Amino acid sequence: MRFMETPDTPENAAENAAATAEDHPGRSTADHSGEPGAEATGIAAQDWDTAAADPQYRAAVVDLLGALAYGELAAFERLAEDAKLAPTLEEKAELAKMASAEFHHFERLRDRLAAVGEQPTEAMEPFAAALDGFHRQTAPSDWLEGLVKAYVGDSIASDFYREVAVRLDADTRGLVLQVLDDTGHASFAVEKVRAAIEADPRVGGRLALWARRLMGEALSQAQRVVADRDALSTMLVGGMADGFDLAEVGRMFSRITEAHTKRMAALGLAA
Amino acid sequence: MRFMETPDTPENAAENAAATAEDHPGRSTADHSGEPGAEATGIAAQDWDTAAADPQYRAAVVDLLGALAYGELAAFERLAEDAKLAPTLEEKAELAKMASAEFHHFERLRDRLAAVGEQPTEAMEPFAAALDGFHRQTAPSDWLEGLVKAYVGDSIASDFYREVAVRLDADTRGLVLQVLDDTGHASFAVEKVRAAIEADPRVGGRLALWARRLMGEALSQAQRVVADRDALSTMLVGGMADGFDLAEVGRMFSRITEAHTKRMAALGLAA
Repeated sequence: MRFMETPDTPENAAENAAATAEDHPGRSTADHSGEPGAEATGIAAQDWDTAAADPQYRAAVVDLLGALAYGELAAFERLAEDAKLAPTLEEKAELAKMASAEFHHFERLRDRLAAVGEQPTEAMEPFAAALDGFHRQTAPSDWLEGLVKAYVGDSIASDFYREVAVRLDADTRGLVLQVLDDTGHASFAVEKVRAAIEADPRVGGRLALWARRLMGEALSQAQRVVADRDALSTMLVGGMADGFDLAEVGRMFSRITEAHTKRMAALGLAA
Repeated sequence: MRFMETPDTPENAAENAAATAEDHPGRSTADHSGEPGAEATGIAAQDWDTAAADPQYRAAVVDLLGALAYGELAAFERLAEDAKLAPTLEEKAELAKMASAEFHHFERLRDRLAAVGEQPTEAMEPFAAALDGFHRQTAPSDWLEGLVKAYVGDSIASDFYREVAVRLDADTRGLVLQVLDDTGHASFAVEKVRAAIEADPRVGGRLALWARRLMGEALSQAQRVVADRDALSTMLVGGMADGFDLAEVGRMFSRITEAHTKRMAALGLAA
């Protein structure tokens, strides 16, 4: 399968994204060989038309775009809902702004699906149960939980987009990086949460548990998707000549979890 | 008061907006003298700095921008909420798109308040009770009610923006017309509602009552605002040399109601 010729796993893509990423002076720079821009090989060097000639690669990208599109639409819905918890109109507007940004991401992903001849709804539907399940299990009970969720969700999404970008053909990667460029609207949440913890340190303990629960639920739903969508999962881990490598999926989740843990610690939420 | 030198009432601004607007060949074209572009006089010929030197005009415009900003933010919230009722992802995306557009309108209005040195939240707060009350009283119980509400709300808002635009200084009018230009995203709702009535004519009777209730509740809340906000109300009706003219407010509401009734009839919702 052609799409297995993807570059090396970007071991520290997610770590680099963490606010608290430490330097690893002893680590070989060979780890970075998989990053696009340096020296694109395999799928990364191909355009969509060439790469999509492989039906399994095509199916994997359609799955990916469908999952991301549904994720963005669901994020729009939940952020709009959680904005109701805001204590002031300014703060409501901040979360509403994030919601609106997610909607525009959804539009781009949906339009891309249509442009490659896919029915967007059909591509999105396989991921509805997992994403709806995540949001149902993690409905914030107050504004601070909503803020932490907005920040955690935005950060995990960024890490995931960054992880997956290096697996993609040049055209799909361009779209994913465009959407990624427009994330990060949740930084306002960091200050608010920090201020709330300073005002009442007990808040920190409660929110630390909440952040852990968010990550746990995200991983649980992600495992569900991995189990169901073989082509997508194989692509996500860079493909394996001898078939799907569950351990590599685990390592990708570990990198994202590690980055999450560092971000939470930086926020004063080390539980 | 300088802001009373506004042009004549645009008798048929709202009527022209109605999908079913009939021609009135016998009507004098003098009615159109108040429309901007033709021959701007009074406030319409002034820029913001000149017009805002009159503290009562300034207060009225701040009220107006605050009311519109809160209205757009509330519309964002409700449309995002009502999008949950959508039977398909495509339809959900249509309502979410409207919600996102309303949010961008809110941003423009809020930024304008800030640009003229006002605290947006303070300007918006006096209108929260009326607008929240409207939405609380008119929460759709199903998708078709949500569609009718989206269409009715969008149309009434357009009529109101058009009515008010001719009362404004050139700078504020420019902003209001920009926002107005970006409305009309609800046309998709018209087809859906029409198709539902064709499929089951009894639906028409129920939705006709619903549309009447929406308009009734909107008028009821608008009366509340009129009673509370004297400067705004006086400006809305073009100002009266001898004080506030309640009858003229009534005529403006009548024009908007008439346009609404015609639109509903065109939609097959004549109850």
